Amino acid sequence: MSDFEARLQRLEDEAAIARLIASYGPLVDAGSASEVADLWEPDGVYDVDELVMNGRDEIVAMVQSPNHQRWIAGGCAHFIGPPVVTVTGDEALAVCHSLMIVNRDGQFVVRRATANHWRLRRGEDGWQVAVRTNRVLDGRPEAPALFSEAGG
Amino acid sequence: MSDFEARLQRLEDEAAIARLIASYGPLVDAGSASEVADLWEPDGVYDVDELVMNGRDEIVAMVQSPNHQRWIAGGCAHFIGPPVVTVTGDEALAVCHSLMIVNRDGQFVVRRATANHWRLRRGEDGWQVAVRTNRVLDGRPEAPALFSEAGG
Amino acid sequence: MSDFEARLQRLEDEAAIARLIASYGPLVDAGSASEVADLWEPDGVYDVDELVMNGRDEIVAMVQSPNHQRWIAGGCAHFIGPPVVTVTGDEALAVCHSLMIVNRDGQFVVRRATANHWRLRRGEDGWQVAVRTNRVLDGRPEAPALFSEAGG
Repeated sequence: MSDFEARLQRLEDEAAIARLIASYGPLVDAGSASEVADLWEPDGVYDVDELVMNGRDEIVAMVQSPNHQRWIAGGCAHFIGPPVVTVTGDEALAVCHSLMIVNRDGQFVVRRATANHWRLRRGEDGWQVAVRTNRVLDGRPEAPALFSEAGG
Repeated sequence: MSDFEARLQRLEDEAAIARLIASYGPLVDAGSASEVADLWEPDGVYDVDELVMNGRDEIVAMVQSPNHQRWIAGGCAHFIGPPVVTVTGDEALAVCHSLMIVNRDGQFVVRRATANHWRLRRGEDGWQVAVRTNRVLDGRPEAPALFSEAGG
Repeated sequence: MSDFEARLQRLEDEAAIARLIASYGPLVDAGSASEVADLWEPDGVYDVDELVMNGRDEIVAMVQSPNHQRWIAGGCAHFIGPPVVTVTGDEALAVCHSLMIVNRDGQFVVRRATANHWRLRRGEDGWQVAVRTNRVLDGRPEAPALFSEAGG
């Protein structure tokens, strides 16, 4: 039985992580600041090109910021692609693309296409993000470099 | 054993619902009108900003409409994102983004980025859509409001 | 037990295929030529509109080509949508959309929206691509035709 359970557990882990990652986009577009932050560990890190957020309070502050609220008010979609997830015990890696699409003067434009690298951990409250690193795919080498682990 | 079966069943339910949602885009781009409609319950509802379709016949009519056929003839992609699925017994909720990308004068443009909210039910023929509600993410508040349930 | 194992195996197969398909985008954007090619069988086929690649060497050559390297250097995202997977024994079909998004003069544009049709086989090394066929959704009828199998 233990082999079956291990296989089942692995599928559940992968599904839980894929769900967590997929939920970021809808939650951040809804402005659900604390729900977004709770995807991370209490002291989790969200490292984007222009900003490093340390801990949930700084993630809440980003969602509640006038900048982010303006995106919501104008119309925006944080569109996250299907992740490639690799679980190793209580740790996991995932990579995926994301698009930030915004409504500008009545037209939708792709404001950013981004490489996402997620480091996750299983704790008492299930899987959470330890470190998420995003780099915009505009030619800077560190963006595709985040993707080299996809085949791991 | 029943615990294993319940866990397996839950994964199967989530996978079946994700598959159903993913299949909408390819089917509607192929113009497969009855296959699209069969994703819904016979009297299922598809509520988009400018149109509410009640029952499969009205969904078939939308796919076969000159408007939709023109999108296909010109080139279009109904690109659906990975859903966040929550199963509760024989009912389920899912949220995801969708993009409608069209070819216009030889260039691809994002015509719409949309919040999708799916209410599904399990019946004799498996999971089907009871109500799908779409609102375009152009700043109207009801669009991000559809996403507030993503963390449920 | 055999019924449970068959159900578990089916979920694992679908997850493995979805993972393989999702990994194409990050790997090709990273320029990981041999990892991309290894998604295919040794003599697998990658058939895109303007080019048919036969076997892994030709896929490696595409990734290493000046053309592809220019996309990476300029900034690009091969964004793959969630696939609709149908497993039948040791063979599988999958369909999905893909977007090629490129950075051009500091702006992201959708260069291509494409219908993807994947024929996969299970071998000694697990699931691999036998034939992947891509057709751009610009109005040519063979592109939506690839999607007719999505409801299979």
